[in-house]
Amino acid sequence: MKCRVCREPAIIDIRRHNANFCTEHFLKLCRDQTVKAIDEFAMIKPGERVLVAVSGGKDSLAIWDILLDLGYEADGLYLGLGIGDYSDASRECARAYARQRSATLIEVDLPADYGYDIPTGARAAKRVPCSACGLSKRHLFDQAALDGGYDVVVTGHNLDDEAAVLFGNVLRWQTDYLGRQLPVLPARQGFPRKVKPLVRLGEREMAAYCVVKGIDYIVEECPMAVGNKHLGYKEALNAIEATSPGSKHDFYFGFLSRASAHFRPQAEGEQAELLACISCGAPTTSETCAFCRLVERAGGHLPAGDRAVRDAVPVVLSPSRSAGAVT
Amino acid sequence: MKCRVCREPAIIDIRRHNANFCTEHFLKLCRDQTVKAIDEFAMIKPGERVLVAVSGGKDSLAIWDILLDLGYEADGLYLGLGIGDYSDASRECARAYARQRSATLIEVDLPADYGYDIPTGARAAKRVPCSACGLSKRHLFDQAALDGGYDVVVTGHNLDDEAAVLFGNVLRWQTDYLGRQLPVLPARQGFPRKVKPLVRLGEREMAAYCVVKGIDYIVEECPMAVGNKHLGYKEALNAIEATSPGSKHDFYFGFLSRASAHFRPQAEGEQAELLACISCGAPTTSETCAFCRLVERAGGHLPAGDRAVRDAVPVVLSPSRSAGAVT
Repeated sequence: MKCRVCREPAIIDIRRHNANFCTEHFLKLCRDQTVKAIDEFAMIKPGERVLVAVSGGKDSLAIWDILLDLGYEADGLYLGLGIGDYSDASRECARAYARQRSATLIEVDLPADYGYDIPTGARAAKRVPCSACGLSKRHLFDQAALDGGYDVVVTGHNLDDEAAVLFGNVLRWQTDYLGRQLPVLPARQGFPRKVKPLVRLGEREMAAYCVVKGIDYIVEECPMAVGNKHLGYKEALNAIEATSPGSKHDFYFGFLSRASAHFRPQAEGEQAELLACISCGAPTTSETCAFCRLVERAGGHLPAGDRAVRDAVPVVLSPSRSAGAVT
Repeated sequence: MKCRVCREPAIIDIRRHNANFCTEHFLKLCRDQTVKAIDEFAMIKPGERVLVAVSGGKDSLAIWDILLDLGYEADGLYLGLGIGDYSDASRECARAYARQRSATLIEVDLPADYGYDIPTGARAAKRVPCSACGLSKRHLFDQAALDGGYDVVVTGHNLDDEAAVLFGNVLRWQTDYLGRQLPVLPARQGFPRKVKPLVRLGEREMAAYCVVKGIDYIVEECPMAVGNKHLGYKEALNAIEATSPGSKHDFYFGFLSRASAHFRPQAEGEQAELLACISCGAPTTSETCAFCRLVERAGGHLPAGDRAVRDAVPVVLSPSRSAGAVT
């Protein structure tokens, strides 16, 4: 097995590219594919300040690493979800990476800052955990980016993630979600721009990237997600990909180029009707935004000792820069 | 396990209906769902002459049986594909059913009438067997219907079939196919109307229908289809359906109600450019239609002893009616 570029021994085969790569050219491929996605979808302009949503998993640490290597001014944001050992271990991975690269990591902690964790909060709000978690993340990423003056929020969604989300949206023909499933969501009043620069790279490549670069990441799936539908969609697509390499790529990029536009007018029509949440000011379709309603129902379900002041300033681990910009 | 309707012992559970049924009410369900599909999509008008494409498998024999029970004037058309024992056994199932119901079965035989069978013809034409087979079937069904003065061609495609085809079209975003994937294709110059009255019923229900009604059908998958992508799509959807009953129904009917219209204008635009094949007169996008090109390349690859005259009159097994209408 030889590297397609230099013919030296390869360390990975990528079947959808029908090629093998050595360490050097595999890392170059990851950077090149990221640059290609950023350029193709105008994700980040030169000089913009970037906030990376960091979970401690392979994808978010890899994209943070790639962006730093590419010279972007990229800080990390870690959100403590209060999911027991899983959260402790993933926080430690995020912190260790930040220390290693002397990068700035902002931390927000759901239990300490908002009085709930995902398991108890989801129960109290009668939502499935992944729904309460996604809602909390979206809101707090937006807020941290606006508070910190960042131009763009980067998430580590890779091709496998996006193909699985697309499959779920297509299975139910959720045309509003289909209209919004893009690698770039432009900034608009109350929302920062959000981008997914890993859409051209798969889950397996991201794991290999971290191993090769010596980045310690949390390997376990989130215990709340075990058995959820999203993982079932991934398995179904993996079976297709195994017999037809490139299927996921064609599914996702074919959607973007030939179908997405059909569903956009409806989704954009719905966006025009947003108001400001009377509690926090975030854009919402009702009087109070879904996050404030979640906090209202879920907050206070933890013993007082686990809670800190609600409006706590986020903790910032920044060996090299002042925290002024993010408070 | 009790019948949802009468509380007598049930013989089948249908998870997507979250219900069990006794023999009587299961058969009623099959008829009712067929009637519902026919009515909802205006498939067959009262008094129209119906030609059922009969493969000898469960679906085509079941829909023929249901249509006869519902009082439709429905004849069968069997197409001999020359796939060894599989074709012999499936022909026998079709003939046995026709005898049992005193129904009219028209037979066309590819090797005898056109000088090729699917395995050798596909090789000669450099097509995969399922492609050569689908092309031959569509052409000869259309021709038999027009020659015989039938108003509508019925095929036995069930919900599992249509969901799997839709999945394949969506995976590659074949927008032209998506625009044409409807349970009814209206008649237009050179093409009869084509309808799929089993779209509300699943594969498992059709097998049960035949067992309950004592209809002998060919159980084996076509040997040429083993390992094809369509079966892979079915397996992937079966895995989803197992954890979320009703997924296939929602996927297919959600497409029809919320997405299909987006893709129709493109497909209709392409239809407008059809010409008449210079060889057989069938509608085509090129000078000679794909079927005539297939016959041109594939015909004559069988030993002469296996062939009959090219323009042979189809064999008609009709215990009760004259064959005059179909020649």
